[in-house]
Amino acid sequence: MASSNFTPPEVPMELYAINREKLVKNLRQHLSDAGRPLHGFVFLQGGEEKTRYCTDHTELFRQESYFAYLFGVTEPGFYGAIDISTGKSTLFAPRLPENYAVWLGEIKPASFFKERYIVNAVCYTDEIVKVLQDEYQGPGQPLLFLLHGLNTDSDNFSKPAEFEGKEKFEVDLTTLHPVLTECRVLKSHLELAVIQYANDISSEAHVEVMRRTTVGMKEYQLESMFLHHTYMYGGCRHSSYTCICATGGNSAVLHYGHAAAPNDRTFEDGEMALLDMGAEYNFYGSDITCSFPVNGKFTSDQLLIYNAVLEAHNVVISTLKPGISWLDMHKLAEKTILKSLKKGGIIIGDVDEMMAERIGAVFMPHGLGHLLGIDTHDPGGYPKGMERPKEPGLRSLRTIRQLQDGMVITVEPGCYFIDALLVPALEGSNTSKFFNREVIGRFTSFGGVRIESDVYVTADGCKNMSNVPRETWEIEAVMAGTPWPLEKTFNSSGNGGL
Amino acid sequence: MASSNFTPPEVPMELYAINREKLVKNLRQHLSDAGRPLHGFVFLQGGEEKTRYCTDHTELFRQESYFAYLFGVTEPGFYGAIDISTGKSTLFAPRLPENYAVWLGEIKPASFFKERYIVNAVCYTDEIVKVLQDEYQGPGQPLLFLLHGLNTDSDNFSKPAEFEGKEKFEVDLTTLHPVLTECRVLKSHLELAVIQYANDISSEAHVEVMRRTTVGMKEYQLESMFLHHTYMYGGCRHSSYTCICATGGNSAVLHYGHAAAPNDRTFEDGEMALLDMGAEYNFYGSDITCSFPVNGKFTSDQLLIYNAVLEAHNVVISTLKPGISWLDMHKLAEKTILKSLKKGGIIIGDVDEMMAERIGAVFMPHGLGHLLGIDTHDPGGYPKGMERPKEPGLRSLRTIRQLQDGMVITVEPGCYFIDALLVPALEGSNTSKFFNREVIGRFTSFGGVRIESDVYVTADGCKNMSNVPRETWEIEAVMAGTPWPLEKTFNSSGNGGL
Repeated sequence: MASSNFTPPEVPMELYAINREKLVKNLRQHLSDAGRPLHGFVFLQGGEEKTRYCTDHTELFRQESYFAYLFGVTEPGFYGAIDISTGKSTLFAPRLPENYAVWLGEIKPASFFKERYIVNAVCYTDEIVKVLQDEYQGPGQPLLFLLHGLNTDSDNFSKPAEFEGKEKFEVDLTTLHPVLTECRVLKSHLELAVIQYANDISSEAHVEVMRRTTVGMKEYQLESMFLHHTYMYGGCRHSSYTCICATGGNSAVLHYGHAAAPNDRTFEDGEMALLDMGAEYNFYGSDITCSFPVNGKFTSDQLLIYNAVLEAHNVVISTLKPGISWLDMHKLAEKTILKSLKKGGIIIGDVDEMMAERIGAVFMPHGLGHLLGIDTHDPGGYPKGMERPKEPGLRSLRTIRQLQDGMVITVEPGCYFIDALLVPALEGSNTSKFFNREVIGRFTSFGGVRIESDVYVTADGCKNMSNVPRETWEIEAVMAGTPWPLEKTFNSSGNGGL
Repeated sequence: MASSNFTPPEVPMELYAINREKLVKNLRQHLSDAGRPLHGFVFLQGGEEKTRYCTDHTELFRQESYFAYLFGVTEPGFYGAIDISTGKSTLFAPRLPENYAVWLGEIKPASFFKERYIVNAVCYTDEIVKVLQDEYQGPGQPLLFLLHGLNTDSDNFSKPAEFEGKEKFEVDLTTLHPVLTECRVLKSHLELAVIQYANDISSEAHVEVMRRTTVGMKEYQLESMFLHHTYMYGGCRHSSYTCICATGGNSAVLHYGHAAAPNDRTFEDGEMALLDMGAEYNFYGSDITCSFPVNGKFTSDQLLIYNAVLEAHNVVISTLKPGISWLDMHKLAEKTILKSLKKGGIIIGDVDEMMAERIGAVFMPHGLGHLLGIDTHDPGGYPKGMERPKEPGLRSLRTIRQLQDGMVITVEPGCYFIDALLVPALEGSNTSKFFNREVIGRFTSFGGVRIESDVYVTADGCKNMSNVPRETWEIEAVMAGTPWPLEKTFNSSGNGGL
């Protein structure tokens, strides 16, 4: 059985204390700027355990992300408050029935949670009204800042805390969400360390899967190996998202792997695999895609597409730094891919003209990447006032922000041969002229290639947090049994005789 | 890497056609008996995909169980109708937006679903009203039998189908649920075959985990190995329930393993493990518990408790047959365990007196077992008119029915040392006299033992569908490396020198 170079780290609860401090500081600043008094409570409701339909089948609980960000609580049924005037944090634990001890485990005292989550106080959820009223220093009814705002990836709204006695409070539904969301956009060093670990163990698992892939397996077997490696050796019980294990033509389905397309195909010699898989550790995620030939050896067509995407991936990473616009990075990736496709004879004509006609979006209909953190698609991509582009491809961007030091973002260019996009483009009066029909015919069932790394933006550039074979010769070497990372002598020079 | 003796089987769609036929037959009988006309539609809404809180994180979809039973549909967003007068079945598929093809996969035509699910017709969900009105033969408004009824394990009600235009139909909310639930109680041969496969691959995975368990591992590593084996080799993407991987004192927490007690303990030499894990295949589940010493060798105290439970497990299985009351089986298990504990010096006095004082429930607070099928706790345990007992232990029974040919039920006696129950029992005026304080002190941190097999009831007995080492010498042999199943010569005779 394989083993690992990593050990699941203990994550310090200071991480969440620092998150809380940052929120209080930013919220006070925001209120000061608006000439508002600096009192009231940030008040959030944690997630609840859910059962499946009418049954008692309990889904494995995962904390709501905003609540996780501020309190790090893994148990369901909690509420949390932060006093804006003092910074004091209070958790409200559910009062568990006596028979919980028989069925679900020890009933822990409030002191246990106080010590574990290093908050200033822990009370019970049936004490919320009394505790907050007693603590409140301001005039009139106590003011609660509740979480209510749009998630721009889902178009869903976060749910403000609900509890008995809510009517005894004044409620502000608009202030908290944008400020708290903005806190989540820039990661602290402690947050970066957890995301780095999720990347480390996921990278290692990707290499393990790559190495064990052989012609004739089922796609889900790759998923199973990844999940096993990250849980067995990495302690990751949750994935960041459902594994996308697409082979052959399936790799042109961007979000393959869900229940109606469940990674259940047997893959064959000569096909590419596109594996988009990331583990979550201690709430924080990773999101990595590797593409490789299932038989371990690239064909010339596979080299062409793969290297087109790799060049886009690399040029973006080498350009990224604070102040750069993500929209520009997306276009840079598009243009890089189009140039390679032109060189490969797949498309014809002037690349700038292609850009104007949005030909890039035919081959890469998704955005170049997204913020990553406690959510795979971390919120904050479109702060108020920033409008989503309307053009094909660009409208799929989950953010068009300028990059800032401390952001974690995925860089995931791709190139796909998707009938639903190619057929209209081949027929379109403004677009048909760009395509070389004969050559493109070779790629009808090719599927696609995506290469995805997680990077964090530093003061003067960015750092790639993912560590997997990227050069085609590295992939071939690893699939042939060479250990990863490769020895330095292989790393530095091109093909190196492998 | 380990491999498997099993290959994921193709499950014939006739399974669901037979389920539908059975429902129509029983429903017609029910309506006839009530002097009601034999027309109208059974009309069910399938499950929907769900996102996590406000995010676009999609939970892996698993079909609602009643819908799965009748139609076997794996995709979200469907509705299904069965015409009671003709037996004609119609599925209503969601009309997918064009860009589904880019993000989520090929948009399949209605004919694809018709062939795949062998129903009589497939239309779209926006055609429900028209199709059902056109097809309806009876007088007045078409009558819909909707699903509405209590799940006696969760105390939740199933949700009747919701759709636009519902007001154009007459609705019956009371007839369908009990009849359909009763259909699910008795399994067809095709259903049994799937449950058998889920048992086969889960049994093999249990053996694999047992063999690889070594002192100093984390509990979740056992979970990871189980999940991996059943997915990698068994094609089981879902578990029947969250794995319970409890060691040491944790094995006295009946439903250990959830988010607030997440299988995260490092286990030590001399402790027992209690692993309650079952894979789901093609909707149908398994539910198996193995208990064993993590170092591969039983101590005398472990032998005492383990064999007490094993004897209860075996005596119940050898007694089970149609007509036997499950309540009696529960009491038989309790009594068997109490006798062994008395022999072991843990308790003192007359066993019948103990039974009257419900001492059995101190050591086994849960029910002896439950119906198993598409849900782990399959519905139908308490049909209308059957009352749940009120006494400790007995009130935890998920059914008290008489057994019938075709039922699948778990047999899962256990014996636990649970402070929350022992402390009051040791102090109770009617109960304290039964306990030998000195001896029981040895077991304070013992945890517990559960032994669980899935059986189906035949015409004259029952068959154990689970196949794992049960005798202590079998467990020790397998943990020492002997292949399972053991050679015949070992199987037949006691210790056999191992």
